[in-house]
Amino acid sequence: MTVELISVGTEILMGNIVNTNAAYLSAKCAQLGMSVYRETSVGDNKERLEEAIRDGLSRSDIVILTGGLGPTKDDLTKETAAKVAGKKLVTDQASKKRIQDYFQKMNREIADSNWKQADMPEGSIILPNKRGTAPGCIIETADGKRMILMPGPPYEMQGMFEQSVYPYLEKLQPKRFYSKMVKICGIGESMAEKMVSDLIEAQDNPTIAPYCKTGEVHFRVTASADSVEEAKKLVKPIVKELKNRFKENVFTTEEEETLEQVVVKLLKKYGLSLVAAESCTAGMFTARIANVPGASDVLSESFVTYSNKAKRKYLDVSKSTLKKYGAVSEKTAKEMVKGAAIGTDSDVAVAITGFAGPDSDEEHPVGLVYIACYVNEKAQVEEFHFNGDRQRVRELAVENALDLLRRCILSNYAK
Amino acid sequence: MTVELISVGTEILMGNIVNTNAAYLSAKCAQLGMSVYRETSVGDNKERLEEAIRDGLSRSDIVILTGGLGPTKDDLTKETAAKVAGKKLVTDQASKKRIQDYFQKMNREIADSNWKQADMPEGSIILPNKRGTAPGCIIETADGKRMILMPGPPYEMQGMFEQSVYPYLEKLQPKRFYSKMVKICGIGESMAEKMVSDLIEAQDNPTIAPYCKTGEVHFRVTASADSVEEAKKLVKPIVKELKNRFKENVFTTEEEETLEQVVVKLLKKYGLSLVAAESCTAGMFTARIANVPGASDVLSESFVTYSNKAKRKYLDVSKSTLKKYGAVSEKTAKEMVKGAAIGTDSDVAVAITGFAGPDSDEEHPVGLVYIACYVNEKAQVEEFHFNGDRQRVRELAVENALDLLRRCILSNYAK
Repeated sequence: MTVELISVGTEILMGNIVNTNAAYLSAKCAQLGMSVYRETSVGDNKERLEEAIRDGLSRSDIVILTGGLGPTKDDLTKETAAKVAGKKLVTDQASKKRIQDYFQKMNREIADSNWKQADMPEGSIILPNKRGTAPGCIIETADGKRMILMPGPPYEMQGMFEQSVYPYLEKLQPKRFYSKMVKICGIGESMAEKMVSDLIEAQDNPTIAPYCKTGEVHFRVTASADSVEEAKKLVKPIVKELKNRFKENVFTTEEEETLEQVVVKLLKKYGLSLVAAESCTAGMFTARIANVPGASDVLSESFVTYSNKAKRKYLDVSKSTLKKYGAVSEKTAKEMVKGAAIGTDSDVAVAITGFAGPDSDEEHPVGLVYIACYVNEKAQVEEFHFNGDRQRVRELAVENALDLLRRCILSNYAK
Repeated sequence: MTVELISVGTEILMGNIVNTNAAYLSAKCAQLGMSVYRETSVGDNKERLEEAIRDGLSRSDIVILTGGLGPTKDDLTKETAAKVAGKKLVTDQASKKRIQDYFQKMNREIADSNWKQADMPEGSIILPNKRGTAPGCIIETADGKRMILMPGPPYEMQGMFEQSVYPYLEKLQPKRFYSKMVKICGIGESMAEKMVSDLIEAQDNPTIAPYCKTGEVHFRVTASADSVEEAKKLVKPIVKELKNRFKENVFTTEEEETLEQVVVKLLKKYGLSLVAAESCTAGMFTARIANVPGASDVLSESFVTYSNKAKRKYLDVSKSTLKKYGAVSEKTAKEMVKGAAIGTDSDVAVAITGFAGPDSDEEHPVGLVYIACYVNEKAQVEEFHFNGDRQRVRELAVENALDLLRRCILSNYAK
């Protein structure tokens, strides 16, 4: 089963947005064992869109289109796909009702153009949009090909894909797939890939696909077989081998589990309360913790102590330490973390202080960050040198703070 | 002058990487007034790559290819492009020398496969790579078309583009371009487009391109003329008209300026210090403020007060208010913002409290958020109902808090 992706929107061709939909859908198709041979982006132009759809259908079994389902005159995907399939657009009453409800709930007036979003290709399978107003659809053509139309905003598209499109595609695929993620952190991308290059070289079934995100490397191990059970059996020894090689760098093997979820889970497991004291990251660490629903069980408060004055007032960092070592120093990080833990009577604390840039000097290089963890009444500080711009230095600091906290809890409490 | 982009690499089609090269090059071509009509991604496959190049050249004046210039057997772009142009690959001595120097400088041994990177299509213009080992090239075909080959890693590609490709393309373009951004917030996408539909309908030169990001709509106005000065003159009245229609919803007309930069600029302008008290956003608002280099001039500290206890302790929210109205209420938001401002002796404060989900009940619908601003010794609270998952509700809360703060400062201080 071969797939082509077409992303529709002049904003893509103008470079106004990065096309993350293509990467998302490519990864999902790979999980389903479907081969994506080509991805195309075209603008809001009827002729070029039609040509792209016809080309795609001539080469592939399925064409997935994203974008161009909105209320404006520029949104042409449904009309064009319907034309290629030889279908008319007809109003779908259920979609019309959903649009009405959506605006009512948002307490907003409905512009007339919004009703256009309920006009769907005749005989198509309607894909409800729980996260926006534009429904999608699946058009099955007379010659057994398929067009799948979804909205462009990633949040809406992903919701629709998970809810309706993935189950639809899964039914088309006779093979059964099983995949497992091995997520690691605290180790660089090229080092991680080098450590398993022999496995990647020899891969066949299962396959091993590495993905990198800020401070993390994820390996997806995927096997195909006649049943999920058989595929699971093929995946198991490879996952075991990866866990064996990366040891405590593996933070989860759960697909959807994030590093902050692992940390919150550990805090809950050992009944620990957390507080953070953030300087350069200015709330990013605490926000990551609060990404996890139910974080309030372990998190009551946190401090952004950007100025020296705030570090003294809320964290009891001594004037002489700040004067002698500066705000970005091992000593200050240690006093910050102790002050936060003791002052709030928390079991566990994290402190982050560093130079995120862009300005720096000899003495204060951009990327120098101290991260402190206070666990089991002991403070531990690590010095990091991150590469990148202001935003990336701060993201890497948060990522490594989460990882350091995870390791500290494990080494103190997991027996 | 029309352009097509071809991104080469199986890692793109597997969804392992997000294709940021396409967005970068699209934006640069738009700046140069070159129309990008299509972007294609293909894998490391000779036949499909050749087909994509031939298709691209048949439709467009210039085909820009990224990726597939490396040392491995999978890297096929030069061979394939040379074949299409009817050229041989010959060793370029200057490139060979540069590769040698690069490895020497990095103190690394040269694998034999690396020399392949010095083999270039005969008669092509060589594009040196200051950030890596693979040079690029420009092939001018017999029928006046052009292929531009650059490496895939964004950092190397951008360096090469700035240094060699942009100047090359600029010479091909007789017209000069000028564009200006009008960024608005506090108004929905479809409403915003409706308000200027007549302008978009009538657009010719300048063009008006709308695009959306979380809570914001940006309009890019671009004109072409014989000189930049003339293009500027064409852009000016349209920008004026947009500002006139959207009034205080326009937060900037600077290309690179973000909403948080505007807010920090206003705080600095009027000499105001800021503090935040965040509940559901748990640090995200403060982190946005600290995105801005030099934010420390206006921000000294902030609180994440997740629990009721923390709201009482740091913000002096009264027990009876929390009991009677709950943590997510207009009254609590007001006490939070006052407590933060007064307790830290700050000029301006923001407080955010809401239900980000995923759990909710009748009384506590997900997406209900109260945002309070304290400016000029007056507290103002607004109630919002956001649609989306936990992450999106929090992002929209931060976006709207920044906007509310901006408006409050302007209405109190800008005379």
